[in-house]
Amino acid sequence: MAIGIIVPDRDTTPLKQAIQNKIPDVPVWVYPSIPDNSKVEMLVVWKQPKAILGAFPNLKLVSSLGAGVEHLLHDPHLPKGVPITRIVDPQLSLSMQRHVLLSVLHFHKRWGDYALQQSRQQWRVPQPPERKVRVGILGVGALGQAVGSYLLQAGFDVLGYSRTRKAQTIFPVWDAQSHALTAFAKQINVLVCLLPNTSQTQGILSASLFQALPVGSCLINVGRGVQLVESDLLQALEQGQLAQAYLDVFEQEPLPSSHPFWRHPQIFVTPHSASITDQQQAAKIIADNFRRLQLGQPLLFAVDRAVGY
Amino acid sequence: MAIGIIVPDRDTTPLKQAIQNKIPDVPVWVYPSIPDNSKVEMLVVWKQPKAILGAFPNLKLVSSLGAGVEHLLHDPHLPKGVPITRIVDPQLSLSMQRHVLLSVLHFHKRWGDYALQQSRQQWRVPQPPERKVRVGILGVGALGQAVGSYLLQAGFDVLGYSRTRKAQTIFPVWDAQSHALTAFAKQINVLVCLLPNTSQTQGILSASLFQALPVGSCLINVGRGVQLVESDLLQALEQGQLAQAYLDVFEQEPLPSSHPFWRHPQIFVTPHSASITDQQQAAKIIADNFRRLQLGQPLLFAVDRAVGY
Repeated sequence: MAIGIIVPDRDTTPLKQAIQNKIPDVPVWVYPSIPDNSKVEMLVVWKQPKAILGAFPNLKLVSSLGAGVEHLLHDPHLPKGVPITRIVDPQLSLSMQRHVLLSVLHFHKRWGDYALQQSRQQWRVPQPPERKVRVGILGVGALGQAVGSYLLQAGFDVLGYSRTRKAQTIFPVWDAQSHALTAFAKQINVLVCLLPNTSQTQGILSASLFQALPVGSCLINVGRGVQLVESDLLQALEQGQLAQAYLDVFEQEPLPSSHPFWRHPQIFVTPHSASITDQQQAAKIIADNFRRLQLGQPLLFAVDRAVGY
Repeated sequence: MAIGIIVPDRDTTPLKQAIQNKIPDVPVWVYPSIPDNSKVEMLVVWKQPKAILGAFPNLKLVSSLGAGVEHLLHDPHLPKGVPITRIVDPQLSLSMQRHVLLSVLHFHKRWGDYALQQSRQQWRVPQPPERKVRVGILGVGALGQAVGSYLLQAGFDVLGYSRTRKAQTIFPVWDAQSHALTAFAKQINVLVCLLPNTSQTQGILSASLFQALPVGSCLINVGRGVQLVESDLLQALEQGQLAQAYLDVFEQEPLPSSHPFWRHPQIFVTPHSASITDQQQAAKIIADNFRRLQLGQPLLFAVDRAVGY
């Protein structure tokens, strides 16, 4: 028996090492160097190549390397009966909180302007030196609430927008029953997308929403790439409707090197790193679940396929 | 009578406008367009050219445009009997808190690396994706304490270092009597300089201090430019002792366009904008003090020349 790691876009050496340290008697193989598929009983998977999940005849468990499992649930090659687990890491929420606060501060303090000035050896203090910001959070689940509280604590104004009415949030939240999304957009100038990926949220970050924001606003997308209409963003930047965009997720990842986002002076690209699983932390959960699998014990963070998480 | 503004490195149009709105009957002139020096009774000054302060025969009051007044106290051309005032703006502290937190987050989340990767259209997630940081604050006055508390609140570890023993700080502070500066440096990997400009602090950010920091540390200078030995910084970056430097202050400001800092990929230059006087806020204090001067009332935020603030 063996564990296979299929994470093509990252260096998983630290993960392999850490799992190996915990269960030294079990081989840990990293795709594409998997010598014998039939020996693999557990897979650790993120952004797997097409059809690969069907190639392991003795698979007994698949673990996502993150909190999300869409890449598994939407993969037609995932064998039906195999249980799915995911990584739940308390650091992940803090990591996302910090990514969003960093983006908000960067926009507020005009560091994008200063980076451009530095490239031109130009010393200039804009007036006003700081942009007034009011942050809108689209998607007020556990993560959205954590991010909003963190921004509030740093002294920023926060307004949330949610599909359903929320009770007991520490910042005001508008819901879709009482307010149109465009009415919400008029109230804010920094839009943070933290929506889950559903058919209703795909393409939600589009021209009509950008037009409702005040001129010179900011977009922070940490939801999913398919939620953004990429050509609408480029147009909104060109028109000045948006001044800056901080993008961590993309329709196609890795972002192709020919993509115009890479070279756009008002777009800041991070490689889906806002909130990233710590490989040491993940290794603990993976090794523990492998042992539980062998002993027939209940798995940690098992996913209900019907519910989707 | 008239008010003169001498602030060569900034666009002070908003300041002029805001003062004018408050006292419409008094001319507000912006250097170098001052038609009649003898009419000027009050000057608003920041980074004034040499010898200019001696050229106003009827000067009755000089206001700094910031909280600092060194540029006035060290100017031999400032007439002896003229009172000095400064701008005290409660926003200034928040502004500095945010600049330092932004720098710390930028280092922690590796946004410097991502900016370089973006310039090369390169998608790569480093491992670990976040740097562990422990922040050391050099100079624990009112501003240092405010900055430390703000970082603490965002979840970062903070240690202060102070010339004298401090009571009642909400984070630990080492003092020069009990610990050497290099012992303090060994405990941290992000060094924030918030020291005042004195003969003892000039050149304090030098090779011996950088050598005591762990390899791959970060320098954030928001004190004064003369506190940094610029050639030692370049060497420490080259050796890898420092990984990143965030500099807001420089020996010579504006930073000359030929200066190597502009083009260094590990140095982030901001134009002394970390904590900058809001011109609307300043105009209120300036207009108010001008009225008080006319009425012979006590001035707001008057500076004691002997004490230095």
